[in-house]
Amino acid sequence: MIKSDTLIYLASRSPRRRKLLKQLGIIFRSFSVNTIEEVLDGEHPVDCVKRLALEKMNRAKKNVRNSIIITADTIVVLDKEVIGKPKNRKDAINILSLLSGRVHTVYTGFCVFNQKTNKSIIDFEKTKVEFRTINKDEIIDYVESGSPMDKAGAYGIQDDFGAVFVKRIDGCYYNVVGLPLTKLYNALRKLT
Amino acid sequence: MIKSDTLIYLASRSPRRRKLLKQLGIIFRSFSVNTIEEVLDGEHPVDCVKRLALEKMNRAKKNVRNSIIITADTIVVLDKEVIGKPKNRKDAINILSLLSGRVHTVYTGFCVFNQKTNKSIIDFEKTKVEFRTINKDEIIDYVESGSPMDKAGAYGIQDDFGAVFVKRIDGCYYNVVGLPLTKLYNALRKLT
Repeated sequence: MIKSDTLIYLASRSPRRRKLLKQLGIIFRSFSVNTIEEVLDGEHPVDCVKRLALEKMNRAKKNVRNSIIITADTIVVLDKEVIGKPKNRKDAINILSLLSGRVHTVYTGFCVFNQKTNKSIIDFEKTKVEFRTINKDEIIDYVESGSPMDKAGAYGIQDDFGAVFVKRIDGCYYNVVGLPLTKLYNALRKLT
Repeated sequence: MIKSDTLIYLASRSPRRRKLLKQLGIIFRSFSVNTIEEVLDGEHPVDCVKRLALEKMNRAKKNVRNSIIITADTIVVLDKEVIGKPKNRKDAINILSLLSGRVHTVYTGFCVFNQKTNKSIIDFEKTKVEFRTINKDEIIDYVESGSPMDKAGAYGIQDDFGAVFVKRIDGCYYNVVGLPLTKLYNALRKLT
């Protein structure tokens, strides 16, 4: 699908993102970049995820040369409040209780940069996600599994429990997993 | 999640359905049932998928005893026209060309029947799927991969190409893969 003579790097430590990129049949390497993932006062979610993807790119591009680099950042927003990764199990329980029976929005910003041509694309995707009402026992069982701990919003839509917490989505599914595949694929086609 | 003393059977030959049910951590066995999957004149898609799920159940329940059985049927509808599995590669190319740049609807009907209690649930799920404009080369590459051939609508949203053909969905993602997990999970909780 994407055939590139230029090496492709995914600058993300997320195993979900690596899996999604593999699904596209793209051959790539990955490394992680450290950024402080904080939301600025009054910053719109779209500006936030694009800024964080760009900040990650600015760090990532120091690590490799003559390559195509991909960075991304995902946040979960409920009632204009950004929900990050849970701090601990109690926090995960609180987050999932908040999401129960309601609609939240997942934003992913991403950046693709071709170091050879010096061309880049920065874009975002947004998906609405509706949870069914979930009960305390289900939440505790899920948190006990450990899976929510490294995920924004304390759930993975591709998980065992995550899959049956979500009633419906409106938008790109893969964006909720961590990478908006269709938009990313189009960006890669333009830059390879 | 679902802990049942009663054996669970999935009466479907679809590897996607088996994978989805495994994702829920459900222990089950599977076998296939043969039904003529045809749409009756003037039949609404909802009636059609529920009827076909029930017809499959009527056959399936003769094969096992004292068990919980799951059957399902998925169809793709574009402009009130039901699109089945492609007959051959040329048909797959035609179907994908039709879906390009447009919105279609995926319906799955499912039936869960507990032979011990004689209780059953029959329900359906519907999801709107929007394709981006896809070009002839992409369609041919995808059809060459062989993947579209056993799938209603000639695509799998979970495939390499399928994933990047879909721009957005409105509804349950897993319904498009072949089983509406959240609704099915709720049905199983009620019947186990």
